[in-house]
Amino acid sequence: MFNSENFIAVDWGSSNLRIWVYQQNQCVWQHADQNGVLKHHPDAFKDTWLTLLSLCPQPLSKDTTVIMSGMVGSNIGWVDSHYLRCPTPLSALSQHLTAVEDAGPFPTFIVPGLQIAGPKTYNVMRGEETQLFGALTDERWYVFPGTHSKWVQVQEGIVCDFQTIMTGEFFHLLSHYSIVGKNAGEQNTNIQAFLDGAERGWNETCLSRSVFDLRARILSHSLPPDTLYESLSGLLIGHEIAQMLQHYAINTGEEVILVGNEELLNRYQSLFHHFGYRCRLCNGEKAFINGIRRLLHE
Amino acid sequence: MFNSENFIAVDWGSSNLRIWVYQQNQCVWQHADQNGVLKHHPDAFKDTWLTLLSLCPQPLSKDTTVIMSGMVGSNIGWVDSHYLRCPTPLSALSQHLTAVEDAGPFPTFIVPGLQIAGPKTYNVMRGEETQLFGALTDERWYVFPGTHSKWVQVQEGIVCDFQTIMTGEFFHLLSHYSIVGKNAGEQNTNIQAFLDGAERGWNETCLSRSVFDLRARILSHSLPPDTLYESLSGLLIGHEIAQMLQHYAINTGEEVILVGNEELLNRYQSLFHHFGYRCRLCNGEKAFINGIRRLLHE
Repeated sequence: MFNSENFIAVDWGSSNLRIWVYQQNQCVWQHADQNGVLKHHPDAFKDTWLTLLSLCPQPLSKDTTVIMSGMVGSNIGWVDSHYLRCPTPLSALSQHLTAVEDAGPFPTFIVPGLQIAGPKTYNVMRGEETQLFGALTDERWYVFPGTHSKWVQVQEGIVCDFQTIMTGEFFHLLSHYSIVGKNAGEQNTNIQAFLDGAERGWNETCLSRSVFDLRARILSHSLPPDTLYESLSGLLIGHEIAQMLQHYAINTGEEVILVGNEELLNRYQSLFHHFGYRCRLCNGEKAFINGIRRLLHE
Repeated sequence: MFNSENFIAVDWGSSNLRIWVYQQNQCVWQHADQNGVLKHHPDAFKDTWLTLLSLCPQPLSKDTTVIMSGMVGSNIGWVDSHYLRCPTPLSALSQHLTAVEDAGPFPTFIVPGLQIAGPKTYNVMRGEETQLFGALTDERWYVFPGTHSKWVQVQEGIVCDFQTIMTGEFFHLLSHYSIVGKNAGEQNTNIQAFLDGAERGWNETCLSRSVFDLRARILSHSLPPDTLYESLSGLLIGHEIAQMLQHYAINTGEEVILVGNEELLNRYQSLFHHFGYRCRLCNGEKAFINGIRRLLHE
């Protein structure tokens, strides 16, 4: 139990770093840059952190607590904050914060990740558990669209199971490096191409086949080349949603909470509605701050 | 109908170029390099070709015919040799050879590709049609494992349908560029990891989920990091075989002809047998030369 009015929330992921400084429960400073964990030597975290702290234009109360979440707690981060193995109550997060020694003027902690470790499936998350804690309602299903989308099943505050789908990374790999996406040229927004792609993704059980189908459509002048990204995005997201709704046997009466940034949530929401399913949107940044607050409270 | 004893067979693909010079039905010179189509400016094909011809140490008969196949006939190749739309008899290939004007001392032709153009699926192949012609038996199913694996359905010499699965390219993208494969470190041969991966691929309908599962297994020390490539290879090939056997409703009594290079055919063969299906191997190079010979005969 900390002073939950004076705190610094840090979302330190693979590629990005974001900081929110709260004093008297008011955000007095925000900072974002691309000093993600992947860009750091293991020894450089402290220097980076102290430099960033020194940029804050506001004097900070001595009883300020720093809570960090994300890849900063991985085995390539500042300190390994380990994983809690599921099923686990989210309330256990606050009991397993890892202290960062010698982190400057304020007590500093890293949130543990969550893990599924067999026997049939394996999975890990870091960062989403904090957003999940902040977004928690009575609903059972939470989706975090992104590079590695997470689908999480929660019951009475307990994370029962989760799965990761590499939708964002597949989009990046295929659009940048594959024969299908290489030299794609200028791309345009096209809702219909997105929905057509999603229809194919919805029915697809073999992605490595349907991606080549996109290329053949372009060669056959059945698909305009400037809609490739929309078609691919629809294909991958439609496939993810279909596969995961089916995997967890989620029905049209249940509401799924989508947590993340606006642009991506809108893509997911439009497909939920297109396929006749319910969802509610939750701003990922608000969920994160709210999650940090709950961690400080408990 | 050409003199089928004096010919030059050219397999000019995206990345590789291979030449076989036959005189009196004997191979008198072979050449292979990496001057694939992707490395060429559109104007440079003739110069490359004449330079390569000049390397041949044997005098060549005046009635020698040159037949080229592969991406050299694509819209980024030397001359666009177009596609024949399926269903089409393979015997139509020889009636639709595209002459290359001003190609040096010998009459020079490019084999057309094959195409599926809707209404539901789209597909293209270039190069495999020549191997297929050379490998043709009474069997109905032909598989060309590779960067873009082809599964082809043939009935009485007519190509009824085919599908492309980007298994080789997915392996390359995921092992080189994805978070799962990056920094994979030294890899070892491991049959069991390959088979375990294939079992998961066999049951998988969401590749973008099961690839992340590999990463989580490594993080959880359930999978040795040096078996990542074997696991991924098994996952992707097992998935391809399961999906395509199911798509075409191929049963355990039917024999599938696998055409390609030895190392890859052995991987596919071991999984066909592992899952209780029949296959027969056919050397891809022999099939190609045989296909060129048949084209010259007809």
